Amino acid sequence: MPEANLDDVCVDTIRTLAIDAVEKAQSGHPGAPMALAPVAYTLWQDFLRYDPADPTWPNRDRFVLSAGHASMLLYGLLHLAGVSSGRGDNRPSVSLDDIKQFRQLDSRTPGHPESHITPGVETTTGPLGQGCGNSVGMAMASRWKAARYNKPGATLFDYDVYVICSDGDLMEGVSCEAASLAGHLKLSNLCWIYDANTITIEGKTDLAFDENVAKRFESYGWNILRVADANDRPAIAKALEAFKAEVDKPTLIVVTSVIGYGAPKKQGTSKAHSDPLGAEEIKGAKALYGWPDEPTFRVPDGVYGHFQGGIGKRGAALNKAWQETLASLRTSDAAHGEAVESFLSGKLPAGWDADLPVFPTDAKGLATRESSGKVLNAIAAKVPWLIGGSADLAPSNKTKLEFEGAGTLSAADPGGRNIHFGVREHAMGAIVNGLVLSGLRGYGATFLVFSDYMRPAIRLSALSEIPVFHVFTHDSIGVGEDGPTHQPVEQILALRAIPNHVTLRPADANEVTEAYRVVMGLTDKSASLILSRQGLPTLDRSVYAPASGVAKGAYVLADAEGAAPKVILIGTGSEIRLCVEVYEKLKAEGVAARVVSMPSWDLFEAQDQAYRDSVLPPRITARVVVEQGTAIGWDRYAGPTGTILAMHGFGASAPLKDLLVKFGFTAEAVYKAARAQLEPKV
Amino acid sequence: MPEANLDDVCVDTIRTLAIDAVEKAQSGHPGAPMALAPVAYTLWQDFLRYDPADPTWPNRDRFVLSAGHASMLLYGLLHLAGVSSGRGDNRPSVSLDDIKQFRQLDSRTPGHPESHITPGVETTTGPLGQGCGNSVGMAMASRWKAARYNKPGATLFDYDVYVICSDGDLMEGVSCEAASLAGHLKLSNLCWIYDANTITIEGKTDLAFDENVAKRFESYGWNILRVADANDRPAIAKALEAFKAEVDKPTLIVVTSVIGYGAPKKQGTSKAHSDPLGAEEIKGAKALYGWPDEPTFRVPDGVYGHFQGGIGKRGAALNKAWQETLASLRTSDAAHGEAVESFLSGKLPAGWDADLPVFPTDAKGLATRESSGKVLNAIAAKVPWLIGGSADLAPSNKTKLEFEGAGTLSAADPGGRNIHFGVREHAMGAIVNGLVLSGLRGYGATFLVFSDYMRPAIRLSALSEIPVFHVFTHDSIGVGEDGPTHQPVEQILALRAIPNHVTLRPADANEVTEAYRVVMGLTDKSASLILSRQGLPTLDRSVYAPASGVAKGAYVLADAEGAAPKVILIGTGSEIRLCVEVYEKLKAEGVAARVVSMPSWDLFEAQDQAYRDSVLPPRITARVVVEQGTAIGWDRYAGPTGTILAMHGFGASAPLKDLLVKFGFTAEAVYKAARAQLEPKV
Repeated sequence: MPEANLDDVCVDTIRTLAIDAVEKAQSGHPGAPMALAPVAYTLWQDFLRYDPADPTWPNRDRFVLSAGHASMLLYGLLHLAGVSSGRGDNRPSVSLDDIKQFRQLDSRTPGHPESHITPGVETTTGPLGQGCGNSVGMAMASRWKAARYNKPGATLFDYDVYVICSDGDLMEGVSCEAASLAGHLKLSNLCWIYDANTITIEGKTDLAFDENVAKRFESYGWNILRVADANDRPAIAKALEAFKAEVDKPTLIVVTSVIGYGAPKKQGTSKAHSDPLGAEEIKGAKALYGWPDEPTFRVPDGVYGHFQGGIGKRGAALNKAWQETLASLRTSDAAHGEAVESFLSGKLPAGWDADLPVFPTDAKGLATRESSGKVLNAIAAKVPWLIGGSADLAPSNKTKLEFEGAGTLSAADPGGRNIHFGVREHAMGAIVNGLVLSGLRGYGATFLVFSDYMRPAIRLSALSEIPVFHVFTHDSIGVGEDGPTHQPVEQILALRAIPNHVTLRPADANEVTEAYRVVMGLTDKSASLILSRQGLPTLDRSVYAPASGVAKGAYVLADAEGAAPKVILIGTGSEIRLCVEVYEKLKAEGVAARVVSMPSWDLFEAQDQAYRDSVLPPRITARVVVEQGTAIGWDRYAGPTGTILAMHGFGASAPLKDLLVKFGFTAEAVYKAARAQLEPKV
Repeated sequence: MPEANLDDVCVDTIRTLAIDAVEKAQSGHPGAPMALAPVAYTLWQDFLRYDPADPTWPNRDRFVLSAGHASMLLYGLLHLAGVSSGRGDNRPSVSLDDIKQFRQLDSRTPGHPESHITPGVETTTGPLGQGCGNSVGMAMASRWKAARYNKPGATLFDYDVYVICSDGDLMEGVSCEAASLAGHLKLSNLCWIYDANTITIEGKTDLAFDENVAKRFESYGWNILRVADANDRPAIAKALEAFKAEVDKPTLIVVTSVIGYGAPKKQGTSKAHSDPLGAEEIKGAKALYGWPDEPTFRVPDGVYGHFQGGIGKRGAALNKAWQETLASLRTSDAAHGEAVESFLSGKLPAGWDADLPVFPTDAKGLATRESSGKVLNAIAAKVPWLIGGSADLAPSNKTKLEFEGAGTLSAADPGGRNIHFGVREHAMGAIVNGLVLSGLRGYGATFLVFSDYMRPAIRLSALSEIPVFHVFTHDSIGVGEDGPTHQPVEQILALRAIPNHVTLRPADANEVTEAYRVVMGLTDKSASLILSRQGLPTLDRSVYAPASGVAKGAYVLADAEGAAPKVILIGTGSEIRLCVEVYEKLKAEGVAARVVSMPSWDLFEAQDQAYRDSVLPPRITARVVVEQGTAIGWDRYAGPTGTILAMHGFGASAPLKDLLVKFGFTAEAVYKAARAQLEPKV
């Protein structure tokens, strides 16, 4: 076996760990790690400002593997660089045993990288384009923190964000949207390394994709660099130097690579993308690398040490200097030092909810989007790192932060707190995920019907257990004349169906306040707020139960006095108005009724059985559910004999008053249903 | 009032109808029609090959208003051009009374254009970017029909597709994806007219969007033209001439316009986008146009006649010539003439389902994606205009048409039937909608989890009542090692929740055949087929009930012999295997059980109560439901005391056998649940 320099050995160790892990698991994607090992190695070893001993160091450069199927590339790097778990458990992020457990149950090495599972994984990737979108949020966050927390002589935040992305990432609309916004914001701290391997699953990329990618990114205002051979480490280093020298634009490095580099027959073909290589191809590849067939999972002497001398040494020194800067800031400017520490604590500031709006009783009331705007502003005034915006609907979503100093985020003012996402819902979702992964509290906003445009990003916020939230207004046929293209029917249910995602549809202004209290308190779930376009009465809480019941998902808003209720009216959002009206009518008629306001199924299901039974006693089977969304799923609460007043098809374009009659959302219809429920069951 | 030429009068009639309609409705978007009337008028009057008397003429040019909020622009054109309803009812598509009923209940002039409501509306638009995507499918369809049905001397199809789109359309990822594919396919019959008005809802476009759009489209391989002033009709005509002369590329015409043109204070601002202008602004705008304040909804003398002499005369002549060509083809080549007529009939060819696969009993079985591939190929061999493809997953989705002559659709072979959509799920959805709106049967395919990427397009297929279908494979934790990013949990429910969309999850190969029979028979609903990655046993249908029960959504697959069942096991897809196994075990133990295979909620709910009660008798409350998706919605069939074995969170990365144990999808778990259901209820 010929002598090789340690850099080459490190690169080939990454490659062969990927090969062996995929082979052992008999599942996975060897091709991209084999191709990109030299690129990723050069980046990590010679450029990445990252302290393996402290993977949550706030000013670390971020590395995003948007092409998440290449997960073994990342696991190999985390392992060889000696990245710690950062959890005080004195163990590595990814051990060699973890690599041997690639894609096995409860391992730290799942098929695609999952940030809540594996320390050092910055974001959960796999669904293509998402990591690209996240990275734009991360780069915005770096700039934002610099603008807000750096002081002359005390640079706390200046980190860069690197992405490895594939053809597939760049074909996806979400990455196109995000790249356009990144160019607009002149995010020169953002570097996408594009693995141009000319191969997709169906064959050569040019079956479907022969656009001039470099020119496209130029049109967005990006700086374009090229590396003709992924194995040419000096050329990679040169490109990364050029990225670091660029001060005005994001950078795209187009790297020509050979998928499955080294596999004699499969390299450069779609056969190298996924599935184990097989003994023959592995033998050939290892021979080309000058690598022994056995043992598998081999890490030659010197590899760990070489990494420690590169990324490890550099990162430790940077981290130390940074800690000193922070310590000296605490001395020189105690108030600012405290502000930084408060931000870095990851906790809400004390008193953040001390002055949340309490809305007076008001029969005419407010649209919940309006009360949302007020509550959001009140919270944002107390939580300096709460930032967000809308996909070009801020005036309709009422999400603008209007207090002094909120500012608008732009290239010139990267510390602004109002973000103009443009008509780019999907990128908004992915970018907000990136903001929250960067320690900010981020939110997005659009019409509820357009939540469909961003579901993949919402799903990943839930899966990766980050407290993103979105403000979805215009939540029903309440949209009126804009018609069925803009009237959500199935969207509330579709959001409720996402695991680990809290969906809240408050009924009035004070429920909005309580909904925000819930949302802001989340730490490992994402959330959606579902809000009305139209005005809703603000209930008299001296007559009806306090809105704090929102925290339990459902609560008894109004009840029969001194008697068990004969019928339960269950509603959410704008339909509570109808329930209360019918309750009062029944009461006047001497009928004991109960109104249950049920803003969140998720929260209600998390309560214990006793509480749930206290709200919806099993023996009371006369029930009417009212919601201007699909009926699906309501059987659980209506029971087998209850009535569900809901949507059974798409809406229509007309003034709301006509739609309410057409689709049966009137007090008369609810009353009639309640009366029918009171008849003896056959 | 000064004399004006009739072209100007027509333009201003379109403008003022839009102004008056929005004002009367007190709702709508006047700004874009006011800006774009000269552009759209020039296109319709002088270029569009369209016969107003026959709005479904197969070779008409297609006009797509992707910026659907500008609906009054389209309604004005349909009205003034005298477009017929095309429904043999001797009435116009849009009457002046219809315009006065803009945005009112049951009118033909809903807030956004809906193709199933208003004759002459080619596609339902409003959610931005969708019309752009549809147009690519329409242009592909034109080329496809030309390749398949034109003969030397008999050009039946050579139509062009025009789109009016907005900044918002071009910011959306779906349009980016579609434009890239259009460039790849060199669709020179496609012309997007981009309304560059520099205004979005939040303010100037450059708040979020300052990319070089023209350069971006050049990077896709498009031809770029510019019109500096939307009011400059000769310049518009020149650009449209240049489009028609282009033979190698799609065309983007960038038109600089002033939103709300003529409104003294609101023009050129986001205030002109939506909402009525108000009396003052209307007065000012009408004065600028040289228009009297009263009457409203004024159509000056000569306007109808002028349109008839332009688009009307040209279109009638073209249609007549086309009918003659078709008639002469019938004589000169009877077989081909019949083939064309069969296609134009919009009906499935006789015998299309005569030879669908019947799969033999097989304990090892097939993945339903595999049987789907066989059935799809069998149908496509009989239905020449069934075309589709995958978003770069055809080898996994098994959707490739493999018989001779199927071919691959490309710029060089526009008549191919296998489409490579690239990693562009959302555009795929919108493009397939365009194919189906063009008379083809189109399908798309990807992994089920990625149905989330294309929901807005799926929703529009359902809303616009077109029989699109999608093939979604890898339908559960059956995905195995790829992990939770690739394992659908909430997607089946989310698809079931879309109104007018049929979701089918067949349990074995013969249910797949029946599912396709249902899907192909749809005429006004869209559909999703939910299929497994892993092998599923092919049931012995001489023992169990025939798979034709699929058509009813749910059916009794196996029943207690000679006794009422004591427990009902309900499942779908891959979980039927477990239900049958437990049924057999219970039978051996002398317990009367029933298995209900329930591939489609939608179809089952459409059956009468008697049938539903025969399958799920209300008195039999001992029930077990098994599905590897979210539990939400199953209460309806499980009943209040049934057991639901389902997913209660995200999946995990591991071999499937381990996941089945972890998440409780084993015969043991189902058996245990069934046994517990058989205990007396407390």
